[in-house]
Amino acid sequence: MSKIKSNPGNFFEDFIVGQVIRHATPRTLTAGDASVNIALTGARHALFSSAAFARACGLEGAPLDPMLVFHTVFGKSVPDISLNAVANLGYAEGRFLGPVFPGDTLSATSEVIGIKENSSGKTGVVYVRTRGENQRGEIVLSFVRWVMVNKRDTAAPAPGDRAPKLAEAVGAAELTVPAGLHFRDYDWALAGAAHAFEDYEIGERIDHVDGMTVEEAEHQIATRLYQNTAKVHFDARAQKDSRFGRRLIYGGVSISLARALSFNGLANAALILAINGGRHVNPLFAGDTLYAWSKVLDKTDLSVAGATKVGALRLRLVAVKDRPCTDFPLRAGDAYAPDVVLDFDYWAAMPKRG
Amino acid sequence: MSKIKSNPGNFFEDFIVGQVIRHATPRTLTAGDASVNIALTGARHALFSSAAFARACGLEGAPLDPMLVFHTVFGKSVPDISLNAVANLGYAEGRFLGPVFPGDTLSATSEVIGIKENSSGKTGVVYVRTRGENQRGEIVLSFVRWVMVNKRDTAAPAPGDRAPKLAEAVGAAELTVPAGLHFRDYDWALAGAAHAFEDYEIGERIDHVDGMTVEEAEHQIATRLYQNTAKVHFDARAQKDSRFGRRLIYGGVSISLARALSFNGLANAALILAINGGRHVNPLFAGDTLYAWSKVLDKTDLSVAGATKVGALRLRLVAVKDRPCTDFPLRAGDAYAPDVVLDFDYWAAMPKRG
Amino acid sequence: MSKIKSNPGNFFEDFIVGQVIRHATPRTLTAGDASVNIALTGARHALFSSAAFARACGLEGAPLDPMLVFHTVFGKSVPDISLNAVANLGYAEGRFLGPVFPGDTLSATSEVIGIKENSSGKTGVVYVRTRGENQRGEIVLSFVRWVMVNKRDTAAPAPGDRAPKLAEAVGAAELTVPAGLHFRDYDWALAGAAHAFEDYEIGERIDHVDGMTVEEAEHQIATRLYQNTAKVHFDARAQKDSRFGRRLIYGGVSISLARALSFNGLANAALILAINGGRHVNPLFAGDTLYAWSKVLDKTDLSVAGATKVGALRLRLVAVKDRPCTDFPLRAGDAYAPDVVLDFDYWAAMPKRG
Repeated sequence: MSKIKSNPGNFFEDFIVGQVIRHATPRTLTAGDASVNIALTGARHALFSSAAFARACGLEGAPLDPMLVFHTVFGKSVPDISLNAVANLGYAEGRFLGPVFPGDTLSATSEVIGIKENSSGKTGVVYVRTRGENQRGEIVLSFVRWVMVNKRDTAAPAPGDRAPKLAEAVGAAELTVPAGLHFRDYDWALAGAAHAFEDYEIGERIDHVDGMTVEEAEHQIATRLYQNTAKVHFDARAQKDSRFGRRLIYGGVSISLARALSFNGLANAALILAINGGRHVNPLFAGDTLYAWSKVLDKTDLSVAGATKVGALRLRLVAVKDRPCTDFPLRAGDAYAPDVVLDFDYWAAMPKRG
Repeated sequence: MSKIKSNPGNFFEDFIVGQVIRHATPRTLTAGDASVNIALTGARHALFSSAAFARACGLEGAPLDPMLVFHTVFGKSVPDISLNAVANLGYAEGRFLGPVFPGDTLSATSEVIGIKENSSGKTGVVYVRTRGENQRGEIVLSFVRWVMVNKRDTAAPAPGDRAPKLAEAVGAAELTVPAGLHFRDYDWALAGAAHAFEDYEIGERIDHVDGMTVEEAEHQIATRLYQNTAKVHFDARAQKDSRFGRRLIYGGVSISLARALSFNGLANAALILAINGGRHVNPLFAGDTLYAWSKVLDKTDLSVAGATKVGALRLRLVAVKDRPCTDFPLRAGDAYAPDVVLDFDYWAAMPKRG
Repeated sequence: MSKIKSNPGNFFEDFIVGQVIRHATPRTLTAGDASVNIALTGARHALFSSAAFARACGLEGAPLDPMLVFHTVFGKSVPDISLNAVANLGYAEGRFLGPVFPGDTLSATSEVIGIKENSSGKTGVVYVRTRGENQRGEIVLSFVRWVMVNKRDTAAPAPGDRAPKLAEAVGAAELTVPAGLHFRDYDWALAGAAHAFEDYEIGERIDHVDGMTVEEAEHQIATRLYQNTAKVHFDARAQKDSRFGRRLIYGGVSISLARALSFNGLANAALILAINGGRHVNPLFAGDTLYAWSKVLDKTDLSVAGATKVGALRLRLVAVKDRPCTDFPLRAGDAYAPDVVLDFDYWAAMPKRG
């Protein structure tokens, strides 16, 4: 007899702490992917947009936007980790360990680092550390995410009970600057803003002003570009019976859109070095208009480690739907305001003036 | 006096058996087209997604998805063959004769191989064999299609009366495996499934489970990528007066979407070698959600001809709208069920385990 | 104290005649951008579609569609010139001075060449000459545009009062043919039409027949590809309060769509050499279906200057919404007909038969 050939995905009780899963579908990212990504997100940081600009910053050419790398690696992990996920709960300890250039091939593995059954007994939280590596076997990205996953059988015993201890943020000493990167001859006019590392103060908040309305075709095309197959993003018919009644936009789309919007105020914060944490706190749907604001959480000078005129800002990026960010929306009482969709904490390289 | 410069297309009485038409707009397919095609269809077969994976299978790099090649060659033929078509009736004798890599330039010619007036006297069926060739003059694809075409003048005599005899399927001996292809070191985990040639049984049916809702923007972008100009796909205003009242999705889009869905159950059947037959049996519209199932019709071992560990499956791929395929929808009485949109019969290479 | 970091854009009183503004975000255009542009516009001129065809015309490979170059350079100028624009009034003196190939990096500067306050005292017209240059510092495009811009403070004095004198058209002697271009061995069948320079008469009008319905996702994706950030195209929420009540399609999208439609009748007029003038006379919205017609305004033989078998047609391209162009819509009394959206005047190279 033939066996079922389609992938049912893993359920909560299928995961074991220590298990390592090699994910399918390696992906050669090309200039074509960079173009489609720009066209879908509105990204316009000069470092990723111009080979000439990137070379003037010491790189061999324009690297791919780190969030494109993130979405690609994340997408690989979906069929094994989150096909039966109820919710994508958070990210931590994300580190970009080397630049990815057009022509590089990425593949991904995940290690289960924690398991915790929910009190309902119907679901549990699975923690994985996912790594993306290039065709030379170099790890270019490592991050932890945790998802709430359905149990196949609610009577099954929990496969473990250990939530890992995760760092609150990636430490400044752990930030990896691409080999050769410097901002010695940084062209502020070409980059789009004169604001340097020195101009940002801890605690400062920036309203990114612009808004972007998202269409179903756009988020679907983006999510397929990342080869992310989670059904909730694509199957309108099945989603009619879901709690949302409609397709849900992949959270990575809101990160990339918010990052593109953040150009207006953070034009020089092109290169994401680390993801300290991130949560999709409310769903985003087609037809919603996304706005964003940022807060400077911390600063560190990386030039001491040899990266000429390179600093880094730790930024909190908040994306909000259908509400401009002049008053920096975040909380409503003890909870997130209902229009806040993303709370994202990351480190980005920032050129120093002096 | 100046003459009409726009192309009115050919009508039924313009075709003559034996006529050879060179089609316009050669097209250099690039990594950009591969990216856009992935983003529009959700294709994720490792062989086309990863240069590293393709090299491990003996190829010089990742070839372009054969269906992208098919749609491109097909698109070239539209202005000459089917601008005045009422319906695209079927395909047969499709053979992929060599891989196409980014940078290759495709052009197309069609030979009229049959003509048959319909009893109404208003339309007729035209049979053409269309060939796509690369910049070195190598034929990379050959297929037959037949379309129902309007007569310009219903009083005109039929230009012939000969339906060609077409093979029911491409014979196993006629399948062409790309030079160098082997599955000697096939990486099943990276490919996304452990199912080998040996695991599929003739008669076996596979529900591909996932669904994909199609938007107007998506099918239009895809069809323009293929430079297919058939008006029915693009002009909503004119289509209001058609029998459907709206834009019709290019059938090739449903083939590519169904193929992408079929990854879930046929992840290793990446490389289409031949198209035995295909019919678009009901129209697909924006807003519809596509599902698919497959049936194994035949198997053949190609390793005997020197392609190490390469077998081939003959597959029937059925695409269905707005109805999951748990019960393998196909017929309603003597006719196709009204939600079946595609019945597609093809050969795909499949790695052998032993 | 931290200063506002987001870009408020320039207001009318911020411009000074003679001022030169270097624009942000240099852009390396790639084969990926060419693919996305084809997929969004339906462009299919053989010269840009096929490297082999372009080489047979004396070029090193397929250049990028000049309108993609135009939109890219234009997009760069938006944050500095037209972020606070009420309307994009017109173009003139556009000259394409050298071909752009995949891999070239474009950057842009604008010089303010005129300023004229409107009688209301609330807005003024700013005239700029924008230049795009490649990574070798060669100017590849130069054009004038003028926009109506809001004043920040209606009480502020006008920063000048001089409308520049602009040429009615680019003279035939000023047309720049790419080095090496010839139509000596032009393949009319591959190009898609047999109509040569000699076949077009001054005064002749051509109905391009086909129609294209535009979706929100399509124009947004295109406008982001061009890194044009004008809010009116993206923020549906803010646009609800605008005079249109909805997102406005970037005028460049209608130019590119109309150009793609014009293939049907002007298949050999691939290479735009100059933009004599252009006006977006009515807004285009998602859901509208675009049609187009052209009129031959002038002809000139460029082969006398050494470009073998190259002529040029001066063409008026009129794009119309929701109305086929069988009767060549243009005027309604003294004004443009309300369904005419674009009146565009350009020179295109055209192969000579003899």
